[in-house]
Parts: sequence; structure tokens; C-alpha cells
Amino acid sequence: MMNERKILEKLPDLLPVNSRIATGAGDDCAVINMPGNNQLLAAADQVIENIHFLPETPPEDAGKKLMNRNLSDIAAMGGVPLTALLTIAANGKDNAYIERFISGAAQAGMVFDVPVCGGDTASLAEKGFCATLTILGEIPDGKAVLRSGAKSGDFVYVTGCIGNSFYSGHHLHFVPRLKEGAFLRDHASAMLDISDGLLLDAMRLAASSNVSLFLDLASIPLRAGAVVPNAFSDGEDYELLFTSPEKLTAFPGDDFAKLSCIGRVIERGESLLVDKNNLPIKMDKNGYEHR
Amino acid sequence: MMNERKILEKLPDLLPVNSRIATGAGDDCAVINMPGNNQLLAAADQVIENIHFLPETPPEDAGKKLMNRNLSDIAAMGGVPLTALLTIAANGKDNAYIERFISGAAQAGMVFDVPVCGGDTASLAEKGFCATLTILGEIPDGKAVLRSGAKSGDFVYVTGCIGNSFYSGHHLHFVPRLKEGAFLRDHASAMLDISDGLLLDAMRLAASSNVSLFLDLASIPLRAGAVVPNAFSDGEDYELLFTSPEKLTAFPGDDFAKLSCIGRVIERGESLLVDKNNLPIKMDKNGYEHR
Repeated sequence: MMNERKILEKLPDLLPVNSRIATGAGDDCAVINMPGNNQLLAAADQVIENIHFLPETPPEDAGKKLMNRNLSDIAAMGGVPLTALLTIAANGKDNAYIERFISGAAQAGMVFDVPVCGGDTASLAEKGFCATLTILGEIPDGKAVLRSGAKSGDFVYVTGCIGNSFYSGHHLHFVPRLKEGAFLRDHASAMLDISDGLLLDAMRLAASSNVSLFLDLASIPLRAGAVVPNAFSDGEDYELLFTSPEKLTAFPGDDFAKLSCIGRVIERGESLLVDKNNLPIKMDKNGYEHR
Repeated sequence: MMNERKILEKLPDLLPVNSRIATGAGDDCAVINMPGNNQLLAAADQVIENIHFLPETPPEDAGKKLMNRNLSDIAAMGGVPLTALLTIAANGKDNAYIERFISGAAQAGMVFDVPVCGGDTASLAEKGFCATLTILGEIPDGKAVLRSGAKSGDFVYVTGCIGNSFYSGHHLHFVPRLKEGAFLRDHASAMLDISDGLLLDAMRLAASSNVSLFLDLASIPLRAGAVVPNAFSDGEDYELLFTSPEKLTAFPGDDFAKLSCIGRVIERGESLLVDKNNLPIKMDKNGYEHR
């Protein structure tokens, strides 16, 4: 069987780049050099029935989720979204279902003035439904916030609340943190969006930056119904995890998300994540792995 | 069950656009306005096991096909390809298969200096394999060749040979007509790539341009093993169908594809396609419909 994480780790080796690609596979978005003063951001993500949503989920909501999880990747670079392309492969769904899914994605995009400009539909050989959305965005040259920029001494922050995303319905109805991401373009040293749980995504940020993170577990902002293990392993939060040399207390405006400082960046040690007793925070064997 | 063609016809209504989108869904690529002197081209296409390739097809070849059919969409606009993103959803395939597929796509891209800069892999709930590739390209402002520009009196041309793509293996091993497309940017009035058979794609070009086409059936260049009905309905040729006010006899170089004039553009009549006896050329009830 396919092991998704192993493939993702191998992707940079499988995918040669050229001078147009400033940042290739491995961050929230690729960064592509363009004429003019902006770079292009590009990312692609999928939703699959029975994995990312249920057969009884309204297709508009599934389409909205697909758009918003891609917009979240643009937010995680500090970028401004531009447009999207959508493909659907399905078997056992009628046209009304497909059209409702497409409309859900398209309307969620237009909330942020992001039109779906193209796509494709095709039949699966077996029953099922999967959809891919590719998002494009823009960012001033050299301003993309990568996962690799965290420095020892930086503070560690998250937006919003973490954990219990699935049962609370957050995974279908979250707001991508585009406003916060654009603000953080000038403040964050490293950033990603939390899609696979705080534990795994914090490890990814630490590994990319070649640092370790001290996390104050008591400071992690929990969604209603969540305890710390939920925050670590539930996933699908689509909040921003970022580091900054600045001591920030809140975003500049009432209409921004809540901001929480949850730790500090420390020199790379044996463990990527440690708690206040300097004990390693480990991946539970039941820890969430995004399929 | 899903009727793909009906959804595609409805897409422009489902997908609102904004001023960044010069051409939205409905052509081979979307055309996106960018700072500077180039527009961005974007298209997304899929391959699905048991539909676009077989379980025994080497995964490298399936990956190459996915890349090349997307490159063909860039060619059909007269553009230059830039980069691509690849997503895979699979169940019942091991990592080696997935990696071979990815490598096949990536290496086919690098033949044209087109790196795959990002992507995603995920598990399908049921057995199967589908992959989406989104291609990005560039074209000087206003130079994209759309489907809608054919004028009465123009000549109708195709590159290469048509028909019998599947049994000949052409569908896995064709060369996308990028060089020809880039040349035609300054010569063609309308263009698309033939993916669903000459009949359906010629009808699309005619309908987009609000013209009819007279086709000289005897002039259609047939691939070995094909007769005219194959050319009309087999599909997966990935040759360029285009119109031009110029009388062209060949491309300017030995390393270009064969060029055949197969008809003329005429005023829009009752039938989109007519033969030399002015009789309508119709879609056979068994005519190829791309699933």
C-alpha cells in the first residue's frame, strides 16, 4: 500500500527544477519567478469522499472545503490568491451533485475574489469521488514566508483554536487565514498551515528550519471539545503556525483571528519538539496521519 | 450518472470570473492577465486507470501521457509551458508504482524544460488510480490563439495524422505540438488540440467561432490502421486543429510535424460540419465521447 508521507519526503528527489522555480515541492506553495515584481505561488490539494468528507456532506460544503484548504496554503506563504483550477473524477454521482460541488468551490473562491478559471470532469472506473484544486497566488519578490526561516530565540505562535476540527464541523466551515497571512508576510520568520495536526506540522517547521521548538502545552488554544492530544493529532485545523522574532500580542484589528504564543524556537536538539520540562513531545502511535 | 459533456457546457455559468481572467473555462487553457507583457496560461487535465490507461500500462508511460496531454493544451494556445503541479489519488498501488508515475510525468516535462513544482498524494476510499496535472504557461499579451477566431474563407488544417491512437500506442507516446503551436501563434485564427476526435473537436471550434466548416474527407491525414470514422471519433490524437487566412503548405523546418489542409471555413449554416457535397457530417450515435 501507498505510504503518503514517504512519497512526500521523496518528492524533491523525484522532481527536478529549473531557475524559474524559487521554491519547489516541500513548502505550502511552490514559488515561481515571474517577470515584474511579483512571484507566482502555486499549490494543489485534493478532497476525497469518505476521507475528507462524508457521502452525506452537502456537496457545496465539500467544494468549499477544497477551495478553502487551498486558500489556506496561499495564506501560509503570506500571499494573495489569484485564481484556481478544479478537476473532478467521479462515479455514482449525478450531474446535480457535481454542479453543486463546483458551485460550492466557485462561490467560496469569490468570497476572496478568486475565480475558478478552468478545470475538467471525468469518470472514475469504480464508485467514488475525488477532486483536485490548484490554487495560484501572488507575492512580492522574495517576500514568501517559507517553513525554513525559524531562528533560535523566535517566538512560536498559532492563530485561532486547534483540535476537534472534524466533530465540531470546523473542517468544513473554517475561514482561510488570508488576512492574517498577508499581515505576517512582514513579521513571520517561518510559517505553515496546520492540516495534519499541530505535532506533525510543528515537526515539519522545525525540521525545515533545522531548529527545535519548545512548546508550552498549557498555552495551546483549544477548540471547544478538544484536549491537548486532539490539538496535536486531529488535524484539519487550517490555522497558521508561525515563528517571529517579535513579541506579538494580537493582530492589528478586531476582525483578525485570535493570536496565541505557544512556545519558543531553540537550538536544534535531539528532539524536534520539547515541553517545559525539556522532555520530548512524540508522535503517538495513533497520531493522526493524513491519508 | 454524470454526463461530462453537459457539465462542461454548463461550466461558464457555474464559474464567475473577474478582470484578471481574460479567457475562462471553455478553451484549451484559461488566459490570466499578469503584470508585465505576458499573460499566464493555465489548464488542468486528468488520467484515470481503466479509462485513459490500463492496469498493465507502465506507470511511467501513464505519467508521461498526463504531462504531454497538458502540454498539448499549452500548444493549442500558441504558448510556452512554464511549470506543472501533480496530484495523485490511489488505492491498491504501492509506493514504487506511484513514484514511477511521478517520475514519468516529471521527466516528460523536463523534455520541454517544464518542472513539476508541487503536488499531493492521497488515498482513494476504493481501489483505483487517478491523477490530475495542472499546467502553467506563458504567452505575449493578446497573442493566445482561442477557439473563437475562425473567419469565413479561412483554411482548415491539422498537424500529423489522426485516428487509431489507442491501438497504435500513439496515445501514450505522442509528442505535444509545442513547436508547431508557438509558430502558429502568428498565423492561426483559431486553434484547439484534438483530444475527443476530429468530429467533436471540429464542431467545438466551429461553434466557438460561430461558423461552419467544410471538410474534405479525402484530405484527412490518417494514422496507419485508421479509416475516416476513426479519425472522426477515436480521439486522443493530441494533434492541432487550426484555421488560418493564410494558405500554408508546410511548417518551416524538417523537424516540424506534417501539415495538412483539410477544408475551409464557411458562413455559419444549419450544420456545423459539411462535406464536399454540402451534406452534414454528423456525430454517429457510437461516436467517441471522452469519459
